[in-house]
Amino acid sequence: MPRGFALRVPGFRAAGVACGIKRGALDLALLVSDGPASVAGVFTRSTVVGAPVALSRERVRRGHARAIVANSGCSNVAMGARGERDAVAMARLAAAAVGCAPEEVLVASTGVIGRPLPLAKIRRGVGLAAGALSAGGLAAAARAIMTTDTFPKTAQARVRVGGRAVTVAGIAKGSGMIEPDMATMLAFVCTDACASPAFLRRALREAAAASFNRVTVDGETSTSDSLFLLANGHAGNPELRGPASRGAAAFRTALREICESLARDHARDGEGATKLVTVRVEGAATAGEAECAARRIANSLLVKTAIFGADPNWGRILQTVGAGRLRLRLPRTRVELAGVTVFRDGRPAGPAATARAAALLRAESEIEIRVALGAGRASARVWTCDLSYGYVRINAEYTT
Amino acid sequence: MPRGFALRVPGFRAAGVACGIKRGALDLALLVSDGPASVAGVFTRSTVVGAPVALSRERVRRGHARAIVANSGCSNVAMGARGERDAVAMARLAAAAVGCAPEEVLVASTGVIGRPLPLAKIRRGVGLAAGALSAGGLAAAARAIMTTDTFPKTAQARVRVGGRAVTVAGIAKGSGMIEPDMATMLAFVCTDACASPAFLRRALREAAAASFNRVTVDGETSTSDSLFLLANGHAGNPELRGPASRGAAAFRTALREICESLARDHARDGEGATKLVTVRVEGAATAGEAECAARRIANSLLVKTAIFGADPNWGRILQTVGAGRLRLRLPRTRVELAGVTVFRDGRPAGPAATARAAALLRAESEIEIRVALGAGRASARVWTCDLSYGYVRINAEYTT
Repeated sequence: MPRGFALRVPGFRAAGVACGIKRGALDLALLVSDGPASVAGVFTRSTVVGAPVALSRERVRRGHARAIVANSGCSNVAMGARGERDAVAMARLAAAAVGCAPEEVLVASTGVIGRPLPLAKIRRGVGLAAGALSAGGLAAAARAIMTTDTFPKTAQARVRVGGRAVTVAGIAKGSGMIEPDMATMLAFVCTDACASPAFLRRALREAAAASFNRVTVDGETSTSDSLFLLANGHAGNPELRGPASRGAAAFRTALREICESLARDHARDGEGATKLVTVRVEGAATAGEAECAARRIANSLLVKTAIFGADPNWGRILQTVGAGRLRLRLPRTRVELAGVTVFRDGRPAGPAATARAAALLRAESEIEIRVALGAGRASARVWTCDLSYGYVRINAEYTT
Repeated sequence: MPRGFALRVPGFRAAGVACGIKRGALDLALLVSDGPASVAGVFTRSTVVGAPVALSRERVRRGHARAIVANSGCSNVAMGARGERDAVAMARLAAAAVGCAPEEVLVASTGVIGRPLPLAKIRRGVGLAAGALSAGGLAAAARAIMTTDTFPKTAQARVRVGGRAVTVAGIAKGSGMIEPDMATMLAFVCTDACASPAFLRRALREAAAASFNRVTVDGETSTSDSLFLLANGHAGNPELRGPASRGAAAFRTALREICESLARDHARDGEGATKLVTVRVEGAATAGEAECAARRIANSLLVKTAIFGADPNWGRILQTVGAGRLRLRLPRTRVELAGVTVFRDGRPAGPAATARAAALLRAESEIEIRVALGAGRASARVWTCDLSYGYVRINAEYTT
């Protein structure tokens, strides 16, 4: 979103504070709806999930919530029964501070796996955050959920729904362990639209499929992935209940755009990333093969290191597609890098094209890899980033 | 194999020479059987394969061969009709130099994808190699097929087959683009055993499944993977024709051991590798889940960078198993790193265990990751290596 844009949604207040889980950084976020809000959530499909995921998944099913409390620096994953108790306690502290029932609070934690949640610090943080709640607090909340992220991820859209002005705003964190099978990632979206939980569930699933589920940094799916959507109805539009409701299409588009913007930011800010890469595969035999080819390219260490090195190495792109045993017709296959065709009709396009592509790979911070397989009509798009020394440094030198 | 061991097989001569494809390094290998040899081959299952793979795959079906000619520095992949003609020409040059039919020559090329094979250099190299053929030449041949390998890979075994002493010897190259779905890899194994092509095919497939197909450096399957086995019968044993033949079991064991040794060397010498990592998964619900879990761990960037950083980060191991949606029972799950239990009964084993594991991860060059999932009785083993700055340097700074 444009810098300096005021990130706020009517009827929501938020805060991000430092309570000492991380050294010298914001580490606790609180987000509160002034009244009950409809809620939907999408979670990691990992078979190993954090205690906060298990608890929030349960509570989202109720369809209504009032608040989200989240911390960075400690994921509260794989801590056994203690982890479960700590997640419940964290929600209870937030409920008491904002004056709602504990069941109305969703919890999320991100950071190191396998360390106990520092509950005394959380208590202090919740108290500080409750005192700091403000309509403009979403930006601070976005900072408080960052781990190895280098910038806070925020997005906001305004849209007409049933004759009313509706705001949709989201905050997210990403960076490493990112291939949401849903995207480590936390994302909280809030809106003042009036909508039923069932409508939100469907709209959120659809938006996640087109956004967070289309981004990969390192092919790793986190134990903590959580995407929450809260809608408090302050806009006063006629309730969105299904696809035929007035303004439903506009709302879904806005929601998807917010999610796409946040997801692209995940790739742009992947651990060690120097470039945002969009992979487009066309001419695949089936939609499944298109997606598989795009994901293979986006997750290929050889492709990602080549992009980091500004090397227009189309051979590595073809290699990883072929290695997936995906159908292609080499004589009809085309590879474009940064808009330059470097391979077509089964042959290299030649040294001039390669040189032009290399120059663009060096100069641009957003790169498109476009591959036409010549095998059919299906296509897919995935966002990723390059693989640099920075990724190795972040993940070898620190426990994350 | 032990250093200084004489690598030679009765009835086989070989040579490795420099013909200028690579600067100042051996780059052309020739391996010749004194008489006709039974042959078997296993190739990449990629849908993008080099012209040499297509040609050799066809010729291996004949069941008999006399020679292998291979070069490094250029893979002759994705060069269209010209690539096909060049592969045929390379075989023809070798056939003329050693005095056999062109169909009796297998071809392999490894190196950069998308550059034309320098046929004038190949011609010169074949001439030099034919003049340099010797019984002790396998070691030089092993050097001549290296690309980013830091050491030549060789292995040799002696075994009694049908009352006769039989030698099995192999050479291989690996390094990057290694997850043979068969390992970039070339491996040539020769033996003086007498065996039918059908017996060799079955024995080689079985050996490849237990060795090269169990190693991964970067999860990438090459367009050029080729494993050849030549048996010239010089040992004079009764022909090996099936599992019931005298000495069949001993031969198969020796072949598997040679292949395992070469495959382990691939992992040990993976691009940028500082550690050889053996991943063992036990207690999986099915064999498929055991292998999938072992491969996920072995290909996890987060696990591989943690090993490089000597970080006993069991959380990343559980994360990647869970992300594959593999069944496990956390309260029964155990993770051992370098022989130290760091997670068990659903909980971290504590800081003392972590410190002990970290010390071993720093000190040892061979690491075992052992995971018991508590979900069943199936197990699997995969070899891999850590992910270091070296991998990024090699693959970002040079076209490979």
